[in-house]
Amino acid sequence: MNGRKLRILTETVQKLLRRGAVANIQKMLSRIHPADIAVLFRHLSQSERVNLFRLVRNVDKRAELVSELDAELRADFLQSIGIDEALKALERMSADDVADVLRNVPDEFGSELLARMHKDDSLQVEGILRYAADTAGGIMVPDFFALPQETTAEDAIGRLRAAVDLEMAFYVYVVNEFEHLVGVVSLRQLVIASPNTRLSSIMESNVVRVRVDTDQEEVAALVSRYNYLAIPVVDTSNKLVGIVTVDDVIDVLHEEATEDILRMAGSAEDITESRSLWRGVKTRLPWVGVAFLSGVAAMFILQTFVDLSSGALGLLLFLPMVLGLGANVGIQSSTLIVRGLATGLLAEGRGRGFAAREVGVGIALAVLYGMLAGVGAILHFDPAHGWIVGVAITLAMVGATLVGAIAPFLMAKVHLDPALATGPVVRGVVDLLGIVIYFAVANPLFTTSTGG
Amino acid sequence: MNGRKLRILTETVQKLLRRGAVANIQKMLSRIHPADIAVLFRHLSQSERVNLFRLVRNVDKRAELVSELDAELRADFLQSIGIDEALKALERMSADDVADVLRNVPDEFGSELLARMHKDDSLQVEGILRYAADTAGGIMVPDFFALPQETTAEDAIGRLRAAVDLEMAFYVYVVNEFEHLVGVVSLRQLVIASPNTRLSSIMESNVVRVRVDTDQEEVAALVSRYNYLAIPVVDTSNKLVGIVTVDDVIDVLHEEATEDILRMAGSAEDITESRSLWRGVKTRLPWVGVAFLSGVAAMFILQTFVDLSSGALGLLLFLPMVLGLGANVGIQSSTLIVRGLATGLLAEGRGRGFAAREVGVGIALAVLYGMLAGVGAILHFDPAHGWIVGVAITLAMVGATLVGAIAPFLMAKVHLDPALATGPVVRGVVDLLGIVIYFAVANPLFTTSTGG
Repeated sequence: MNGRKLRILTETVQKLLRRGAVANIQKMLSRIHPADIAVLFRHLSQSERVNLFRLVRNVDKRAELVSELDAELRADFLQSIGIDEALKALERMSADDVADVLRNVPDEFGSELLARMHKDDSLQVEGILRYAADTAGGIMVPDFFALPQETTAEDAIGRLRAAVDLEMAFYVYVVNEFEHLVGVVSLRQLVIASPNTRLSSIMESNVVRVRVDTDQEEVAALVSRYNYLAIPVVDTSNKLVGIVTVDDVIDVLHEEATEDILRMAGSAEDITESRSLWRGVKTRLPWVGVAFLSGVAAMFILQTFVDLSSGALGLLLFLPMVLGLGANVGIQSSTLIVRGLATGLLAEGRGRGFAAREVGVGIALAVLYGMLAGVGAILHFDPAHGWIVGVAITLAMVGATLVGAIAPFLMAKVHLDPALATGPVVRGVVDLLGIVIYFAVANPLFTTSTGG
Repeated sequence: MNGRKLRILTETVQKLLRRGAVANIQKMLSRIHPADIAVLFRHLSQSERVNLFRLVRNVDKRAELVSELDAELRADFLQSIGIDEALKALERMSADDVADVLRNVPDEFGSELLARMHKDDSLQVEGILRYAADTAGGIMVPDFFALPQETTAEDAIGRLRAAVDLEMAFYVYVVNEFEHLVGVVSLRQLVIASPNTRLSSIMESNVVRVRVDTDQEEVAALVSRYNYLAIPVVDTSNKLVGIVTVDDVIDVLHEEATEDILRMAGSAEDITESRSLWRGVKTRLPWVGVAFLSGVAAMFILQTFVDLSSGALGLLLFLPMVLGLGANVGIQSSTLIVRGLATGLLAEGRGRGFAAREVGVGIALAVLYGMLAGVGAILHFDPAHGWIVGVAITLAMVGATLVGAIAPFLMAKVHLDPALATGPVVRGVVDLLGIVIYFAVANPLFTTSTGG
């Protein structure tokens, strides 16, 4: 769904809701994937969301929609529809998804949901909630297909056929009398084995498994390395307690790649849709601070090598800081936007808003660190000129932020990979622009007021 | 498999091969996953590879091993074992994997393989080879499960049970009399439908599909967005011709994330194991050139603002270039190593060799661009001092390369995410180190020989 499509869909749904055109909406909803309805939800008011949700007739589709919602939006939404309707949706969700919901709602609401779920379900969910969200235990589902080792191939096929709706039955896991994982049999091996063979004699006993506390990144690496559709999860005593399926692994891969990329840019947090200006500033602040401090250090180092105490030459002391701060805020902006484009977030018609907010964050940081640099300049020159340096640095940083924010869109427009916008070409442009802005602003003012 | 394990395994296998301890090797091989044998292959000689391969008794495992080999190594290896054995392995591989093999062997060898395959298989493979490797058509498999729309639910279940060894039968696709894709039914819908219902009345007719020429990145985005296990591929007339399965999507996601990350660092090529020093230099050269040129531009800009023509102050003109070049080579080194660690390439005991080669590439680039800068300095100062600037810039770049190469391993050692090594902290260190080295080398020489 691209930006234009989404805008049209949003407007149509809002119009139909106002008109109360129930039949039309239901027909429309039946053709939209729950993941896309979840995107649409971002652009609706709370009451529109609730009305729309009640018009989704298929319960499984409602459940899938709830799973797909952004965590913060979902917490508010579930409280809006009330505990009874929330429960009905949770009942149709897999245990790992329910655990994910409960991790992100207020404690009290979560406890009430858990208390009112079917005993079997809540036990499964509590089983998952015991583990950290980023471990195998925290992302596993308990719906695996396991049989005792003395089962015959024929019996196993019969059992498997009866369980044909267990969509994740990719492998038959073999367990001993203590429910310990002792082997695995593929569906193909099962079919070609003679009917009376026991699983113990055809199973692969060297099963790749993970423990409940294995980091999700390692789980994802194993699944992708060995091309598995699922990987078994055991507890400390080797008892089989769940499987992690490939679709959850894909989510982990996205998360980890995003995390790596943002760390490269010094903005180590996920790109959330609901990130506020203030949260953006808070996340990026310390990393810009690192660039600032290294700029300060560079100033002192420069001073020991070259005598720049006189006149306009003093401006050169701030050069490494100007370049460092500019590169930092510029790359942060471009990286966040490039990653947003790559993960599809910005393709959903939110490009402008997201970019505008990141530019806002960049400007806030520019003002802040420009002021700090100004204070530094006051100490090195005199109060009358310190503020000139501060303003010049602020403007240079604003320029860098704008270049960083615009470049990915320009690249996309001329059909180049937006990722290039975080690379050396744009960094070169940011450097040069920074130098020009800094000197163009500071130099005339400075030379004028010191008399040349 | 970590580095130590791999080293022990390699040595053991080599020893056993020398001794001709066939039974021991076979027992050992039966316990190692083909993906791991493929890693082991990188460390063996061609004759060891051939001998080891012949000791893998299970034909499917041989086939999987061949699929997992690195493309270049595989081309040589298949020619070593000869066309007959190669054919036996290809017969057991899926059509998309065979197509991948054929894309990477010499044309003549590939044509001979294709000519001697079973007609059915070669037709399927040729069907895939018609499409570019990075499109849906190029990564699809032709083994989907499709039924006519008038089939009843009962019949469909029967047909599905008979096909239980078709491991990729996640969905039942529904086609009309022209084999056009008209719907999809999940296994669960099939089971809960009453036996005589026709597929046409329970199918979801709004099927998300891709065309043979859809870019693989878009295919991957759809599969991960909708949590599909497979997505149907149609030709221009909407005829169902294949499916792309989730395991291939994972490979695409890895490829695309790596591509993005390397583009961010200005080294837009995949991290191949066989990359030579020269190829590394060739890939990174233009991006370092961009930093060089922007350094030159910065020099001219600085000159217009500040008078630095006299004495040691002239050194300051090169400051943006020193910082830009240092950041560029430093980030390239660290990014390549961070990505190598993340994709598991360096965890396989190849960390030192890989890092050493990238440092070698960095030093080569440092010498090259240092010389260029030296020429620039000769034009701005005089021949006697130009070389001092060149040497100083070279050494500053070497320092940056070393910091970039060592930082990820240091981070990993203290249990931090190596990705932080490409971030602002290390960039700050690279900046400061660059300034210190540059001035420490150039300044004394310069001031001494100009007499102050």
